[in-house]
Amino acid sequence: MHNPYDKLAELGISLPPVSIPAAAYLPFVQSGSLIFLSGHIAKQDGRPWVGQLGAGLSLKDGQAAARAVAIDLMGTLQVAAGGDLRKVKRIVKLMGLVNSTSTFTDQHLVINGCSLLISEVFGPEVGSHARSAFGAVQIPLGACVEIEMVAECH
Amino acid sequence: MHNPYDKLAELGISLPPVSIPAAAYLPFVQSGSLIFLSGHIAKQDGRPWVGQLGAGLSLKDGQAAARAVAIDLMGTLQVAAGGDLRKVKRIVKLMGLVNSTSTFTDQHLVINGCSLLISEVFGPEVGSHARSAFGAVQIPLGACVEIEMVAECH
Amino acid sequence: MHNPYDKLAELGISLPPVSIPAAAYLPFVQSGSLIFLSGHIAKQDGRPWVGQLGAGLSLKDGQAAARAVAIDLMGTLQVAAGGDLRKVKRIVKLMGLVNSTSTFTDQHLVINGCSLLISEVFGPEVGSHARSAFGAVQIPLGACVEIEMVAECH
Repeated sequence: MHNPYDKLAELGISLPPVSIPAAAYLPFVQSGSLIFLSGHIAKQDGRPWVGQLGAGLSLKDGQAAARAVAIDLMGTLQVAAGGDLRKVKRIVKLMGLVNSTSTFTDQHLVINGCSLLISEVFGPEVGSHARSAFGAVQIPLGACVEIEMVAECH
Repeated sequence: MHNPYDKLAELGISLPPVSIPAAAYLPFVQSGSLIFLSGHIAKQDGRPWVGQLGAGLSLKDGQAAARAVAIDLMGTLQVAAGGDLRKVKRIVKLMGLVNSTSTFTDQHLVINGCSLLISEVFGPEVGSHARSAFGAVQIPLGACVEIEMVAECH
Repeated sequence: MHNPYDKLAELGISLPPVSIPAAAYLPFVQSGSLIFLSGHIAKQDGRPWVGQLGAGLSLKDGQAAARAVAIDLMGTLQVAAGGDLRKVKRIVKLMGLVNSTSTFTDQHLVINGCSLLISEVFGPEVGSHARSAFGAVQIPLGACVEIEMVAECH
Protein backbone atom coordinates (compact mmCIF):
# COMPACT_ATOMS: atom_id res chain seq x y z
CA MET A 1 0.00 0.00 0.00
CA HIS A 2 1.17 3.52 -0.83
CA ASN A 3 2.33 5.40 2.28
CA PRO A 4 2.61 9.19 2.00
CA TYR A 5 5.20 9.29 4.80
CA ASP A 6 7.56 6.98 2.90
CA LYS A 7 7.35 9.28 -0.09
CA LEU A 8 7.86 12.43 2.03
CA ALA A 9 10.95 10.84 3.62
CA GLU A 10 12.28 9.82 0.21
CA LEU A 11 11.86 13.40 -0.99
CA GLY A 12 13.43 14.82 2.16
CA ILE A 13 10.31 16.82 3.02
CA SER A 14 9.39 17.64 6.63
CA LEU A 15 5.86 18.88 7.08
CA PRO A 16 5.46 22.21 8.86
CA PRO A 17 2.85 22.79 11.59
CA VAL A 18 -0.52 24.19 10.54
CA SER A 19 -0.14 27.46 8.63
CA ILE A 20 -1.34 30.39 10.71
CA PRO A 21 -4.04 32.31 8.81
CA ALA A 22 -3.21 35.91 7.96
CA ALA A 23 -6.60 37.11 9.19
CA ALA A 24 -9.88 36.27 10.96
CA TYR A 25 -10.41 32.70 9.79
CA LEU A 26 -9.36 29.10 10.46
CA PRO A 27 -6.83 27.05 8.47
CA PHE A 28 -9.47 24.37 7.81
CA VAL A 29 -13.00 23.26 8.64
CA GLN A 30 -14.38 19.75 8.37
CA SER A 31 -17.98 19.04 7.39
CA GLY A 32 -18.97 15.39 7.22
CA SER A 33 -16.09 13.60 5.51
CA LEU A 34 -14.98 16.71 3.60
CA ILE A 35 -12.15 18.91 4.83
CA PHE A 36 -12.10 22.44 3.42
CA LEU A 37 -8.63 24.01 3.67
CA SER A 38 -8.33 27.78 3.49
CA GLY A 39 -6.36 29.41 0.73
CA HIS A 40 -2.66 29.03 1.65
CA ILE A 41 -0.35 31.68 0.24
CA ALA A 42 3.17 30.86 -0.92
CA LYS A 43 5.91 31.53 1.62
CA GLN A 44 9.69 31.60 1.44
CA ASP A 45 11.72 31.50 4.67
CA GLY A 46 8.48 32.00 6.59
CA ARG A 47 7.51 35.22 4.82
CA PRO A 48 5.10 35.80 1.90
CA TRP A 49 6.70 34.80 -1.42
CA VAL A 50 6.04 38.13 -3.11
CA GLY A 51 5.82 38.68 -6.85
CA GLN A 52 3.82 38.49 -10.02
CA LEU A 53 4.06 36.05 -12.91
CA GLY A 54 4.69 37.92 -16.12
CA ALA A 55 6.52 40.70 -14.27
CA GLY A 56 9.73 39.56 -12.67
CA LEU A 57 8.89 36.04 -11.51
CA SER A 58 9.68 33.22 -13.95
CA LEU A 59 7.54 30.15 -14.57
CA LYS A 60 10.13 28.14 -12.64
CA ASP A 61 9.83 30.53 -9.66
CA GLY A 62 6.06 30.16 -9.76
CA GLN A 63 6.25 26.37 -9.86
CA ALA A 64 8.64 26.37 -6.88
CA ALA A 65 6.22 28.64 -5.00
CA ALA A 66 3.29 26.32 -5.81
CA ARG A 67 5.35 23.34 -4.60
CA ALA A 68 6.02 25.22 -1.34
CA VAL A 69 2.27 25.75 -0.93
CA ALA A 70 1.72 22.00 -1.42
CA ILE A 71 4.00 21.31 1.54
CA ASP A 72 2.15 23.83 3.72
CA LEU A 73 -1.22 22.40 2.64
CA MET A 74 -0.05 18.91 3.61
CA GLY A 75 1.08 20.25 6.99
CA THR A 76 -2.40 21.63 7.59
CA LEU A 77 -4.08 18.53 6.16
CA GLN A 78 -2.13 16.28 8.50
CA VAL A 79 -3.61 18.09 11.50
CA ALA A 80 -7.05 18.18 9.91
CA ALA A 81 -6.87 14.41 9.40
CA GLY A 82 -6.22 13.78 13.08
CA GLY A 83 -2.45 13.81 12.79
CA ASP A 84 -2.17 11.09 10.16
CA LEU A 85 -2.10 11.71 6.40
CA ARG A 86 -2.95 8.03 5.86
CA LYS A 87 -6.48 8.92 6.95
CA VAL A 88 -6.87 11.01 3.82
CA LYS A 89 -9.12 9.07 1.47
CA ARG A 90 -8.87 11.45 -1.46
CA ILE A 91 -7.51 14.82 -2.48
CA VAL A 92 -10.73 16.06 -4.09
CA LYS A 93 -10.03 19.48 -5.54
CA LEU A 94 -7.58 22.36 -5.69
CA MET A 95 -8.24 25.98 -6.59
CA GLY A 96 -5.00 27.64 -7.65
CA LEU A 97 -4.63 31.41 -7.95
CA VAL A 98 -1.63 32.87 -9.70
CA ASN A 99 -0.72 36.53 -9.19
CA SER A 100 -0.53 37.43 -12.88
CA THR A 101 -0.13 40.27 -15.30
CA SER A 102 -2.80 40.46 -17.99
CA THR A 103 -0.51 38.75 -20.51
CA PHE A 104 0.69 35.71 -18.52
CA THR A 105 -1.23 32.60 -19.64
CA ASP A 106 0.60 29.67 -17.99
CA GLN A 107 -1.30 29.53 -14.70
CA HIS A 108 -1.92 25.80 -15.27
CA LEU A 109 1.84 25.12 -15.48
CA VAL A 110 2.48 27.14 -12.31
CA ILE A 111 -0.10 25.22 -10.30
CA ASN A 112 1.36 21.94 -11.58
CA GLY A 113 4.14 22.63 -9.07
CA CYS A 114 1.55 21.85 -6.37
CA SER A 115 -0.44 19.17 -8.21
CA LEU A 116 2.57 17.05 -9.12
CA LEU A 117 3.93 16.94 -5.57
CA ILE A 118 0.50 16.15 -4.09
CA SER A 119 0.00 13.34 -6.61
CA GLU A 120 3.48 11.96 -5.95
CA VAL A 121 3.18 12.01 -2.16
CA PHE A 122 -0.29 10.44 -2.00
CA GLY A 123 0.00 8.27 -5.11
CA PRO A 124 -2.42 8.50 -8.02
CA GLU A 125 -5.39 6.77 -6.38
CA VAL A 126 -5.57 9.18 -3.45
CA GLY A 127 -3.63 12.13 -4.78
CA SER A 128 -5.01 12.82 -8.25
CA HIS A 129 -7.57 15.59 -8.07
CA ALA A 130 -9.89 18.00 -9.87
CA ARG A 131 -8.61 21.55 -10.22
CA SER A 132 -9.19 25.09 -11.37
CA ALA A 133 -6.34 27.51 -11.98
CA PHE A 134 -6.53 31.13 -13.08
CA GLY A 135 -4.96 34.54 -12.76
CA ALA A 136 -5.66 36.86 -9.83
CA VAL A 137 -4.84 40.55 -10.21
CA GLN A 138 -3.37 40.43 -6.68
CA ILE A 139 -3.17 38.09 -3.71
CA PRO A 140 -3.05 38.96 0.01
CA LEU A 141 0.33 40.27 1.16
CA GLY A 142 1.52 40.33 -2.44
CA ALA A 143 2.08 36.55 -2.57
CA CYS A 144 2.64 35.07 -6.03
CA VAL A 145 0.49 31.97 -5.52
CA GLU A 146 -2.46 30.97 -3.31
CA ILE A 147 -4.05 27.52 -3.28
CA GLU A 148 -7.05 26.11 -1.46
CA MET A 149 -7.91 22.43 -1.17
CA VAL A 150 -10.88 20.15 -0.55
CA ALA A 151 -9.99 16.67 0.74
CA GLU A 152 -11.99 13.66 1.88
CA CYS A 153 -11.02 11.68 4.95
CA HIS A 154 -11.95 8.23 6.22
CA MET B 1 -26.30 28.62 24.32
CA HIS B 2 -25.23 31.20 21.78
CA ASN B 3 -28.21 32.61 19.86
CA PRO B 4 -27.47 34.47 16.62
CA TYR B 5 -30.70 36.48 16.94
CA ASP B 6 -29.67 37.88 20.32
CA LYS B 7 -26.40 39.05 18.79
CA LEU B 8 -28.12 40.54 15.73
CA ALA B 9 -30.51 42.45 17.99
CA GLU B 10 -27.62 43.66 20.16
CA LEU B 11 -25.86 44.94 17.04
CA GLY B 12 -29.05 46.53 15.70
CA ILE B 13 -28.96 44.46 12.52
CA SER B 14 -32.15 43.49 10.67
CA LEU B 15 -31.70 40.76 8.11
CA PRO B 16 -32.89 41.56 4.58
CA PRO B 17 -34.91 39.09 2.49
CA VAL B 18 -33.01 36.77 0.14
CA SER B 19 -30.79 38.72 -2.24
CA ILE B 20 -32.15 38.59 -5.77
CA PRO B 21 -29.47 37.20 -8.13
CA ALA B 22 -28.31 39.56 -10.87
CA ALA B 23 -28.64 36.84 -13.52
CA ALA B 24 -29.82 33.30 -14.39
CA TYR B 25 -29.06 31.50 -11.14
CA LEU B 26 -30.43 30.87 -7.65
CA PRO B 27 -29.32 32.56 -4.42
CA PHE B 28 -28.51 29.14 -2.88
CA VAL B 29 -28.74 25.39 -3.44
CA GLN B 30 -28.68 22.72 -0.74
CA SER B 31 -27.09 19.32 -1.29
CA GLY B 32 -27.22 16.95 1.64
CA SER B 33 -26.41 19.01 4.71
CA LEU B 34 -24.35 21.55 2.76
CA ILE B 35 -25.82 24.86 1.61
CA PHE B 36 -23.97 26.55 -1.24
CA LEU B 37 -24.70 30.29 -1.37
CA SER B 38 -24.07 32.15 -4.61
CA GLY B 39 -21.58 34.97 -4.72
CA HIS B 40 -23.27 38.02 -3.16
CA ILE B 41 -22.00 41.39 -4.35
CA ALA B 42 -21.73 44.35 -2.01
CA LYS B 43 -24.65 46.79 -2.10
CA GLN B 44 -25.24 50.23 -0.66
CA ASP B 45 -28.78 51.61 -0.47
CA GLY B 46 -29.94 48.65 -2.59
CA ARG B 47 -27.57 49.34 -5.47
CA PRO B 48 -24.16 47.80 -6.30
CA TRP B 49 -21.41 49.24 -4.10
CA VAL B 50 -19.17 50.26 -6.97
CA GLY B 51 -15.42 50.78 -6.78
CA GLN B 52 -11.98 49.32 -6.71
CA LEU B 53 -9.59 48.90 -3.82
CA GLY B 54 -6.34 50.67 -4.56
CA ALA B 55 -8.12 53.22 -6.75
CA GLY B 56 -10.49 55.43 -4.82
CA LEU B 57 -11.92 53.06 -2.24
CA SER B 58 -10.13 52.92 1.10
CA LEU B 59 -9.51 49.80 3.18
CA LYS B 60 -12.19 51.04 5.57
CA ASP B 61 -14.68 51.36 2.69
CA GLY B 62 -13.85 47.83 1.59
CA GLN B 63 -14.33 46.45 5.08
CA ALA B 64 -17.70 48.19 5.38
CA ALA B 65 -18.71 46.72 2.02
CA ALA B 66 -17.65 43.24 3.14
CA ARG B 67 -19.66 43.70 6.35
CA ALA B 68 -22.69 44.64 4.25
CA VAL B 69 -22.24 41.44 2.22
CA ALA B 70 -22.18 39.44 5.48
CA ILE B 71 -25.61 40.82 6.36
CA ASP B 72 -26.99 39.92 2.93
CA LEU B 73 -25.46 36.43 3.14
CA MET B 74 -27.12 35.91 6.54
CA GLY B 75 -30.44 37.04 5.06
CA THR B 76 -30.12 34.40 2.34
CA LEU B 77 -28.83 31.79 4.77
CA GLN B 78 -31.80 32.31 7.07
CA VAL B 79 -34.16 31.33 4.24
CA ALA B 80 -31.89 28.47 3.16
CA ALA B 81 -31.95 27.14 6.71
CA GLY B 82 -35.75 26.99 6.76
CA GLY B 83 -36.23 30.43 8.25
CA ASP B 84 -34.12 29.90 11.34
CA LEU B 85 -30.40 30.71 11.61
CA ARG B 86 -30.22 28.48 14.69
CA LYS B 87 -30.43 25.52 12.32
CA VAL B 88 -27.02 26.46 10.95
CA LYS B 89 -24.55 23.94 12.31
CA ARG B 90 -21.44 25.54 10.90
CA ILE B 91 -20.25 28.29 8.60
CA VAL B 92 -17.85 26.13 6.59
CA LYS B 93 -16.11 28.37 4.10
CA LEU B 94 -16.08 31.79 2.49
CA MET B 95 -14.57 32.81 -0.84
CA GLY B 96 -13.98 36.56 -0.84
CA LEU B 97 -13.24 38.49 -4.02
CA VAL B 98 -11.96 42.03 -3.81
CA ASN B 99 -12.12 44.30 -6.86
CA SER B 100 -8.48 45.34 -6.81
CA THR B 101 -5.81 47.20 -8.70
CA SER B 102 -2.63 45.22 -9.34
CA THR B 103 -0.91 46.91 -6.39
CA PHE B 104 -3.50 46.46 -3.62
CA THR B 105 -2.46 43.59 -1.32
CA ASP B 106 -4.84 43.81 1.67
CA GLN B 107 -7.65 41.60 0.36
CA HIS B 108 -7.49 39.57 3.60
CA LEU B 109 -8.15 42.69 5.69
CA VAL B 110 -11.07 43.69 3.46
CA ILE B 111 -12.76 40.30 3.76
CA ASN B 112 -12.28 40.42 7.54
CA GLY B 113 -15.19 42.87 7.45
CA CYS B 114 -17.37 39.88 6.61
CA SER B 115 -15.57 37.20 8.63
CA LEU B 116 -15.59 39.16 11.88
CA LEU B 117 -19.32 39.87 11.75
CA ILE B 118 -20.16 36.26 10.84
CA SER B 119 -18.01 34.97 13.70
CA GLU B 120 -19.55 37.44 16.12
CA VAL B 121 -23.16 36.69 15.18
CA PHE B 122 -22.82 32.90 15.22
CA GLY B 123 -20.17 32.68 17.95
CA PRO B 124 -16.82 30.98 17.42
CA GLU B 125 -18.04 27.35 17.49
CA VAL B 126 -20.50 27.81 14.64
CA GLY B 127 -19.20 30.95 12.99
CA SER B 128 -15.47 30.45 12.57
CA HIS B 129 -14.72 29.29 9.06
CA ALA B 130 -12.18 28.43 6.39
CA ARG B 131 -11.60 31.10 3.77
CA SER B 132 -9.87 32.21 0.61
CA ALA B 133 -9.53 35.87 -0.34
CA PHE B 134 -7.93 37.35 -3.42
CA GLY B 135 -8.07 40.14 -5.95
CA ALA B 136 -10.44 40.08 -8.93
CA VAL B 137 -9.73 42.40 -11.85
CA GLN B 138 -13.46 43.21 -11.91
CA ILE B 139 -16.71 42.04 -10.35
CA PRO B 140 -20.22 42.00 -11.87
CA LEU B 141 -21.85 45.45 -11.99
CA GLY B 142 -18.59 47.01 -10.84
CA ALA B 143 -19.10 45.96 -7.20
CA CYS B 144 -16.08 46.32 -4.93
CA VAL B 145 -16.56 43.01 -3.07
CA GLU B 146 -18.24 39.66 -3.78
CA ILE B 147 -18.42 36.79 -1.30
CA GLU B 148 -19.77 33.26 -1.58
CA MET B 149 -20.39 30.91 1.35
CA VAL B 150 -20.69 27.22 2.11
CA ALA B 151 -22.61 26.40 5.30
CA GLU B 152 -23.73 23.20 7.01
CA CYS B 153 -27.17 22.85 8.51
CA HIS B 154 -28.69 20.42 10.97
CA MET C 1 -40.45 13.64 -16.66
CA HIS C 2 -37.85 16.00 -18.04
CA ASN C 3 -35.18 14.13 -20.04
CA PRO C 4 -31.93 15.99 -20.74
CA TYR C 5 -31.31 13.87 -23.85
CA ASP C 6 -34.59 14.95 -25.44
CA LYS C 7 -33.63 18.56 -24.92
CA LEU C 8 -30.09 18.04 -26.26
CA ALA C 9 -31.53 16.37 -29.39
CA GLU C 10 -34.04 19.20 -29.81
CA LEU C 11 -31.20 21.73 -29.62
CA GLY C 12 -29.03 19.68 -32.00
CA ILE C 13 -26.25 19.32 -29.43
CA SER C 14 -23.94 16.30 -29.39
CA LEU C 15 -21.93 15.91 -26.23
CA PRO C 16 -18.16 15.64 -26.66
CA PRO C 17 -16.07 13.05 -24.78
CA VAL C 18 -14.50 14.11 -21.48
CA SER C 19 -12.39 17.25 -21.86
CA ILE C 20 -8.69 16.42 -21.52
CA PRO C 21 -7.15 18.56 -18.76
CA ALA C 22 -4.42 20.97 -19.85
CA ALA C 23 -2.15 19.87 -16.99
CA ALA C 24 -1.56 17.48 -14.07
CA TYR C 25 -5.11 16.96 -12.85
CA LEU C 26 -8.30 15.01 -13.54
CA PRO C 27 -11.42 16.30 -15.30
CA PHE C 28 -13.56 15.39 -12.26
CA VAL C 29 -13.50 13.71 -8.86
CA GLN C 30 -16.50 12.30 -7.01
CA SER C 31 -16.76 12.38 -3.22
CA GLY C 32 -19.92 10.88 -1.76
CA SER C 33 -22.77 12.08 -3.95
CA LEU C 34 -20.94 15.24 -5.02
CA ILE C 35 -19.06 15.44 -8.32
CA PHE C 36 -16.44 18.19 -8.53
CA LEU C 37 -15.65 19.09 -12.14
CA SER C 38 -12.39 20.86 -12.89
CA GLY C 39 -12.38 24.29 -14.44
CA HIS C 40 -13.13 23.84 -18.16
CA ILE C 41 -11.76 26.52 -20.47
CA ALA C 42 -13.67 27.70 -23.52
CA LYS C 43 -12.65 26.09 -26.80
CA GLN C 44 -13.44 26.81 -30.43
CA ASP C 45 -12.70 24.15 -33.06
CA GLY C 46 -10.82 22.18 -30.41
CA ARG C 47 -8.42 24.97 -29.50
CA PRO C 48 -8.53 27.50 -26.62
CA TRP C 49 -11.04 30.29 -27.33
CA VAL C 50 -8.58 33.09 -26.77
CA GLY C 51 -9.48 36.66 -25.85
CA GLN C 52 -10.45 39.16 -23.22
CA LEU C 53 -13.79 40.77 -22.53
CA GLY C 54 -13.50 44.52 -22.70
CA ALA C 55 -10.65 44.27 -25.24
CA GLY C 56 -11.73 42.80 -28.53
CA LEU C 57 -14.28 40.18 -27.49
CA SER C 58 -17.89 41.31 -27.37
CA LEU C 59 -20.47 40.29 -24.78
CA LYS C 60 -22.06 38.08 -27.44
CA ASP C 61 -18.71 36.34 -28.08
CA GLY C 62 -18.29 35.77 -24.36
CA GLN C 63 -21.78 34.30 -24.03
CA ALA C 64 -21.13 31.95 -26.96
CA ALA C 65 -17.88 30.87 -25.32
CA ALA C 66 -19.66 30.24 -22.01
CA ARG C 67 -22.29 28.20 -23.87
CA ALA C 68 -19.50 26.12 -25.44
CA VAL C 69 -18.08 25.47 -21.96
CA ALA C 70 -21.53 24.28 -20.84
CA ILE C 71 -21.49 21.64 -23.58
CA ASP C 72 -18.00 20.46 -22.57
CA LEU C 73 -19.01 20.38 -18.90
CA MET C 74 -22.04 18.22 -19.78
CA GLY C 75 -19.76 15.89 -21.77
CA THR C 76 -17.57 15.44 -18.70
CA LEU C 77 -20.55 15.21 -16.36
CA GLN C 78 -22.09 12.43 -18.46
CA VAL C 79 -19.01 10.28 -17.90
CA ALA C 80 -18.81 11.28 -14.23
CA ALA C 81 -22.44 10.20 -13.79
CA GLY C 82 -21.72 6.72 -15.13
CA GLY C 83 -22.60 7.52 -18.72
CA ASP C 84 -26.09 8.81 -18.09
CA LEU C 85 -27.02 12.44 -17.44
CA ARG C 86 -30.35 11.27 -16.01
CA LYS C 87 -28.41 10.16 -12.94
CA VAL C 88 -27.65 13.81 -12.18
CA LYS C 89 -29.83 14.81 -9.25
CA ARG C 90 -28.86 18.46 -9.19
CA ILE C 91 -26.51 20.97 -10.73
CA VAL C 92 -25.35 22.49 -7.44
CA LYS C 93 -22.99 25.32 -8.26
CA LEU C 94 -20.95 26.97 -10.98
CA MET C 95 -17.91 29.20 -10.62
CA GLY C 96 -17.48 31.29 -13.75
CA LEU C 97 -14.30 33.17 -14.54
CA VAL C 98 -14.27 35.77 -17.26
CA ASN C 99 -10.97 36.96 -18.74
CA SER C 100 -11.62 40.67 -18.26
CA THR C 101 -10.07 44.09 -18.52
CA SER C 102 -10.39 46.21 -15.38
CA THR C 103 -13.35 48.09 -16.85
CA PHE C 104 -15.57 45.21 -18.03
CA THR C 105 -18.41 44.65 -15.53
CA ASP C 106 -20.78 42.20 -17.26
CA GLN C 107 -19.26 38.92 -16.10
CA HIS C 108 -22.70 37.80 -14.88
CA LEU C 109 -24.16 38.22 -18.38
CA VAL C 110 -21.26 36.31 -19.94
CA ILE C 111 -21.69 33.33 -17.61
CA ASN C 112 -25.43 33.32 -18.34
CA GLY C 113 -24.40 31.73 -21.64
CA CYS C 114 -23.55 28.64 -19.61
CA SER C 115 -26.25 28.90 -16.94
CA LEU C 116 -29.13 29.26 -19.39
CA LEU C 117 -28.14 26.21 -21.43
CA ILE C 118 -27.59 24.07 -18.33
CA SER C 119 -30.97 25.10 -16.95
CA GLU C 120 -32.67 24.42 -20.28
CA VAL C 121 -31.12 20.98 -20.78
CA PHE C 122 -31.76 19.71 -17.26
CA GLY C 123 -34.96 21.65 -16.62
CA PRO C 124 -35.38 24.03 -13.68
CA GLU C 125 -35.71 21.41 -10.92
CA VAL C 126 -32.38 19.77 -11.66
CA GLY C 127 -30.61 22.45 -13.65
CA SER C 128 -31.04 25.66 -11.68
CA HIS C 129 -27.94 26.30 -9.60
CA ALA C 130 -26.00 28.59 -7.29
CA ARG C 131 -23.21 30.55 -8.90
CA SER C 132 -20.35 32.99 -8.58
CA ALA C 133 -18.98 34.94 -11.53
CA PHE C 134 -16.13 37.40 -11.59
CA GLY C 135 -13.24 38.77 -13.63
CA ALA C 136 -9.89 37.00 -13.86
CA VAL C 137 -6.88 38.98 -15.06
CA GLN C 138 -5.94 35.98 -17.21
CA ILE C 139 -6.95 32.35 -17.73
CA PRO C 140 -4.76 29.37 -18.74
CA LEU C 141 -3.83 29.37 -22.44
CA GLY C 142 -5.41 32.79 -22.82
CA ALA C 143 -8.97 31.42 -22.84
CA CYS C 144 -11.73 33.99 -22.48
CA VAL C 145 -13.89 31.94 -20.09
CA GLU C 146 -13.34 29.13 -17.56
CA ILE C 147 -16.10 27.45 -15.58
CA GLU C 148 -16.05 24.80 -12.87
CA MET C 149 -19.09 22.88 -11.61
CA VAL C 150 -20.29 20.97 -8.57
CA ALA C 151 -23.10 18.50 -9.25
CA GLU C 152 -24.96 15.93 -7.17
CA CYS C 153 -25.77 12.48 -8.50
CA HIS C 154 -28.20 9.77 -7.42
